Formats: sequence, structure tokens, C-alpha cells
Amino acid sequence: MNTPELIRRKREGGEIPEPEIKEFIDAYVAGDVPDYQMSAFLMAVFFQGMTPPEAATLTKSMMGSGVTYDLSDLPGPKTDKHSTGGVGDKVSLILAPLVACAGGVVPMVSGRGLGHSGGTLDKLDSIPGYRWDLDQKTFKRQLEKVGCAIIGQTENFVPADKRLYALRDVTATVESIPLICGSILSKKAAAGTKFLVMDVKCGSGAFMDTLEKARQLAEGLRTIGSELDMRVSSIITQMGQPLGEMVGNGLEILETLDLLRGEGPEDSRVITLELCAEMLVISGLEKDTKSALGKLESLLSSGKAMEKFQEWIAAQGGDPRIVEDPSLIEISSETSVLESDRDGWVSAMNTRDIGVAGNLLGAGRMKTDDVVDTTVGLKIHVKPGTKVSRGEPLVTLYHRGGRNLDKATTMLRNAIAIEDGETKPLPLILDRLGPV
Amino acid sequence: MNTPELIRRKREGGEIPEPEIKEFIDAYVAGDVPDYQMSAFLMAVFFQGMTPPEAATLTKSMMGSGVTYDLSDLPGPKTDKHSTGGVGDKVSLILAPLVACAGGVVPMVSGRGLGHSGGTLDKLDSIPGYRWDLDQKTFKRQLEKVGCAIIGQTENFVPADKRLYALRDVTATVESIPLICGSILSKKAAAGTKFLVMDVKCGSGAFMDTLEKARQLAEGLRTIGSELDMRVSSIITQMGQPLGEMVGNGLEILETLDLLRGEGPEDSRVITLELCAEMLVISGLEKDTKSALGKLESLLSSGKAMEKFQEWIAAQGGDPRIVEDPSLIEISSETSVLESDRDGWVSAMNTRDIGVAGNLLGAGRMKTDDVVDTTVGLKIHVKPGTKVSRGEPLVTLYHRGGRNLDKATTMLRNAIAIEDGETKPLPLILDRLGPV
Repeated sequence: MNTPELIRRKREGGEIPEPEIKEFIDAYVAGDVPDYQMSAFLMAVFFQGMTPPEAATLTKSMMGSGVTYDLSDLPGPKTDKHSTGGVGDKVSLILAPLVACAGGVVPMVSGRGLGHSGGTLDKLDSIPGYRWDLDQKTFKRQLEKVGCAIIGQTENFVPADKRLYALRDVTATVESIPLICGSILSKKAAAGTKFLVMDVKCGSGAFMDTLEKARQLAEGLRTIGSELDMRVSSIITQMGQPLGEMVGNGLEILETLDLLRGEGPEDSRVITLELCAEMLVISGLEKDTKSALGKLESLLSSGKAMEKFQEWIAAQGGDPRIVEDPSLIEISSETSVLESDRDGWVSAMNTRDIGVAGNLLGAGRMKTDDVVDTTVGLKIHVKPGTKVSRGEPLVTLYHRGGRNLDKATTMLRNAIAIEDGETKPLPLILDRLGPV
Repeated sequence: MNTPELIRRKREGGEIPEPEIKEFIDAYVAGDVPDYQMSAFLMAVFFQGMTPPEAATLTKSMMGSGVTYDLSDLPGPKTDKHSTGGVGDKVSLILAPLVACAGGVVPMVSGRGLGHSGGTLDKLDSIPGYRWDLDQKTFKRQLEKVGCAIIGQTENFVPADKRLYALRDVTATVESIPLICGSILSKKAAAGTKFLVMDVKCGSGAFMDTLEKARQLAEGLRTIGSELDMRVSSIITQMGQPLGEMVGNGLEILETLDLLRGEGPEDSRVITLELCAEMLVISGLEKDTKSALGKLESLLSSGKAMEKFQEWIAAQGGDPRIVEDPSLIEISSETSVLESDRDGWVSAMNTRDIGVAGNLLGAGRMKTDDVVDTTVGLKIHVKPGTKVSRGEPLVTLYHRGGRNLDKATTMLRNAIAIEDGETKPLPLILDRLGPV
């Protein structure tokens, strides 16, 4: 393999044949291609893109770099959801048991929060006893028995993605559609997923800040997905505001429980159910969105979804009594309230800064070695379109004191714009893109 | 310094402020920025280019990474010539003593041949006793006394360029105007040059294969040069054919002696004198090209240029008697002749392949650790525009036998196109671009 020549061809906009991409990625994982050649290649990909077959080969090679879960002998469609990351996004925690209830097998491999966005494993850490480190056999057995599992990445799970992601992070090559698709789809394919619904977040708290970029990603995912025999559907959802009311790990579990009871904030509820419904439809469990939504509503109102939630949590060592006694979820008793300093209407939110404010209180990490405090966070009382009066609460801060409290409070005040004139709520679903 | 952010800004087409570029290059040289970040940056520069101030800062930072020669106290303008590399290019060997004779100070730091193109140090190796490894003090003393010197790069001469060039070579980031300019000008500036004439080769044996690319490079060099207070002029010369008759190290010294006697092939003579004249004009030693050419002709015909050549060679330990007795230059006695297999006119030459054919005989290196044989090479009897008859010699090969001889002969036959119809000689000077 002539690596400089391969980089040069990509640089000139050429298509690299499948065997060469495979050899290149394999050699990188084996340590035979150094980081400095890979980073030059990644930057060339940033500018020149990749064709769907190139991106599919990249994805397959990444997938094959470590352990893969073969779930083909389990009955039921293997279906998963993935979000591009946002603030207050607790969808997975409701979705996994709900879709399992409806006949799906949901093999979720989740991550930690980084930057302004939260991570599912951090949220699960606030459930006493919950373990994310299942071995392959236990994971599969649980999927067979319960229908869902949410675990973390083991050392040998798509190691190529770990190395490539770390390299992209420090070489400004993260924002490339084929590379993002490769990273997402290699992990979903390795986990055994065949039907994937993407929650592509869009807006001030999303990595894709414009609808155009969100659509490009959705288009890339479904095209590359189809090359991998994976049906990928995307719903582009609103991240111009936090999702739901709660931001922070323990607090989001509380909202999760509300949602499973058929209660909770409307936006969280609508977006979660739409994502679940899409999973049921593309995996063939329901014939259309309407019937899927009906099915999901009945699973919530009958309590079956909550039972499945308890079954799942218990299977992974967590305390299922949190459902009856949410006080088992530890939440900081120190609170302060940010009040509106004027009358008016909320017109916009800097959702990223709301996420960062939560992190300042300890709810997330800006650096990988930051320690997360699952007991702190924010309750967001308003959204764009909300009418507020002077002195009315905008945000309740659950904190541990300390000097970051002032900083977070200031940040939150600046993150919520209030105007004199009436404003409208933001649409929750911005676009949808079904599978190929 | 936030390196990923710096790379990202270049990736997005932004201009990096001077202090940050300087800090970035300094940190790279110090080992604090890893190769994988630099290679991503270089690829971003390939796509987005650099503004003249950015490129000038890059160049200055590279220059400052090692030893620099301060020649300001020497009388006479410090002027040099640099070629982008070609086949049969022995210009420096005549030019250095000739310009020194005319009042210039010529501080040449030369390199080895690589790929199809030759290197001045390899040619000088065929002069018995010649030493290229002068220390800084000896180099400067010789410039003061003789007016010219041709030395090699010591370990600490622009180390940033050595590292960057090696990295660019394996990451497909060589062909970038600001990076090429940085590499050339950092070394010229470090050697103390204030007036530079670039011999930008163009055609089948040149790295710049089109006139457009050659002009872009010339434009970049003069613009970035002016930011460095260096006057840079370019002459774009013909490399659609080898320069002169001789290709190969010892053989090129023989042609050098002919040229210094006012003889030798017309193309070598014209291009050498035009480059010398430009040096005299831009450095203020002569008022225009015409007077400069007159001066140079008289220095050749009077024998003064040849005396200066001998003085220079002797000063660096070489045997000056080669002038009176060229047989002191060892040339292989084994020769073979490639004859024309038809009547016609030479219409085109693949000059790169002629260079590679010479390398196959041992005249150059395709890999850095190849060993050069200074006694072998080619004498080219024809050029595009030459009328040939069947059986007439096209090329004489000076070789050491071995199986590469056949390969080189076949390559040469394929490199020389002969047509039935009359053809014209190629123009020697394709364009000129004076200093800003």
C-alpha cells in the first residue's frame, strides 16, 4: 500500500477502491499507518467527502476492528435510536423499554456526556446499583429475556472509532458527514442493529446548528446505512431549547419516570413517542405511524412500559423501587431560583449555554476527566413562546454551592432572551427523512 | 495555544494572526505540537492556501528554527539563484563564480538529487577533493575572500524545513504554493540571501508541469519574498527537454568547463547567462539585462570567470587542475549509443523519464539511501526540432553494464518522440516575473 498516493488521490477528489480503504483502515488499527498520515487523510476527506461505497467500506472496516454482537438468532427486529446529542435529552431511557414492550429488541450501547451535551450512562449512574458493564453473553441474554439493554462501550468495542474519534477531536476533522456517519453506524452495526432511527438535533444546543447541515447528515446516514443493509430513518428535532424540563442526571431520571407514567413535559413526550413510532414502523412491527403511536400510548397508559422499565433496570442491577419511591434518586437539596427581571415573552434560548451552565454546577464534563455529580442540574420552567412576568421563576438550579453557582446563574440569564412582543413556541419536529 | 481551533480556522479559510502561526511553528519544532496535528494543518493549507503575511510568518518561523548566517558586514549584494529542479541543470556551477566575478556575493546552500532531478552536491562530488561541509565561519570567510561558496545543509540549518518537508512528503501535502515558498525562502533567508532569482522549470521534466502552475509559484515567491525584504525575480525556463547535453554528475562538470570557456550547448549557455544577468540587475550591480549580459560575456571570454571557478573549487579543497586536465573527472569508459530507428524530426521529450533513465545507470537516486555513481550518465545529442536519420545517435549512455542498461535504453527510446514532419525547437525562456 502506498499511503501518500492514497492520500493524494483523496485530496484530488478521487474515489479510493474498497480493498484499499479496507487495507488502509486495517493498517491504521494495526499501528502500521501512523496518526500523521491518517489525520492528513481525514482532512482531505473533510474537503473532498466520500462516496457512499467509500464511506460504507470505512464503516465496515471500523466495525470489524473489534468485537461484534451477533443477535441474528434472537426473535424480533433489532432496532435502536441514536441522538446527535443535546441538552435534557432523556429519550433513550423511556424509548428502550417502550419499544421492547412493543416487540423490538433494543441493543443500546451508550456513551458519556461531553461538552455541553449529556450522556445516557451518566444519567443511569444516578440509579442506585445500575451496572453498564455487561459482558457480551450477559448482554445478549438480557436482550433475549427483557428485550432491551443499555450498556457502555467496552475496551474492544469498535476500537478504530475510539482512535479515529480521538484523532479527529484534536485535528479539527470532526465535522465531516462521512466521518460522523462512519463513527455512528460502525458502533450501531457492531451492536447488531438492523433498524436505526436517528434523532438529528438541530438548533442552538446541537452540533448541527442549521437545518441544512442536519438534513445532510440524515441523508448521509440513510445512504451509507443502506450500503450496510441497515435501514436508517431520521427525525430532525428541535434543539433550539432544552428537551423537557429537567437537565442533569438524577433530575432527568425523575422526568423519565413521569414520562413513563404518561405524564411529563409535552415536548419530551411528543419527541420520544415519534422516535419510538418510527422504530416500530421501519422495523415492520407496526404498519404506520398512527397505529404505532396508538400502540405506544396504550403501553404507557396500561403501565406495561413502566413494568418493562423496572424489569430492565433490575436486570442490570439497578433498584426498581425508584418507580414507587423516586426519593431513592439523590437530588441536591440546595436550590436557587433564577427569576425573570422583566415582563415579556421568551423569544430564544442559547441551549448550548444552558448545557454548559448545568456542567458548571457539576452535571456534566467539559474535559474527559471531569467528575460528574448526578445530584445537580436545572429545571427549566420556560421555553420560547412562554409569557413571563417579572419575578417569575425561569430556572431552578439544584447545586452544591461554590463559586460556579454565580457563573452558571449569569450564564443562564444571558441564555434566555425575553422580548416585549408575543412569541410563538418552536416546532418540535423540523423534518423527517425515511429510509432509502 | 488551542491547536485544534487553529487548524479549524485554517480549514474554514480564515487567516491565522502572526503571533499564533509563529507560536504554532515554534511549538512544532520544539516537539510540543505532534506530527498528526501539523499534517492536518498542512492539508488544510493545501486546500485553503495562506495569505502572504501568513506565509511570510511561516517562512520566518522556519528560518529561525536553526542557525542563520549574518552576511550583512560583507561588501556586495548577497544574491543567489534557486532552481525548482530539472534534468541536466548545471547552472549553479557556472553561475556562482560568474556572479561572484561580477561583484555579487553568492552564498549557495545546495542539496542532493532526488527523484528524476539532479542535485548540485552530487555533481560537485565528482570533483576530486571537493568538500561541501564548511562550518559557518569558514563559509563566511570564503564568501568574503572568493565571493561564492556552495555548501550542503548542516544538521542545524533550518531544521523546521527538514521536519516539515519529510512530513509533507508522506502526507501528500507537497504541492502547495505557500508551503513550497516557505521551504525555499526559509533556507535562502537563513543563508543570508537578499536578492534571489528563481529558475522555475516548466515542462515534462519539471515538478511544475504547466505554465500556469509555474506562474503561480513565481507569483507566490515574489509576494512572500517581499514580505521578508527579499527581492525575488523568476524566470520560467524550458524543462520540456534536458538542459544542455550532459546528464549525470561527472559529465555535467565537463559541460560546466565548456560553458566557462564560452563554449558548450546553446540552451545551457543562454539560460545560465539570463539567470546571472537577472541576479546582477535585481541586486543593482548592473542597470539592465543588456549591460549585464555584456559584462558576463566579457568575464567569460577574458577567462576571469574560469579563474574564479578555480579559486572557488580550490578554496573548498577541490582540485583546480580539472580545468586544464578534465580527465581528472572520472567518467565511465563503458559506453553504448542509442540510435534513431527512423528518419524524421524529434518532436517531444519525456524529460522526467530521461532523468529516471540516468538514475537507472546510477547517476541519481530514487530513494534517499540510493548510492550515486558520479561517473555514469547520458549525453543527449538531440532536442525537439532536431532532424535525425535512421542510425544517427540520439543518446550516448555512459554506464557500468548490468541489467539496468537495457531498461534505461528502452526508457530513453520511448522518451524521445520522432515524427515525419518538420518540428521546431522549444523556446528556452517561457516567462519572466520581476520582483514586486
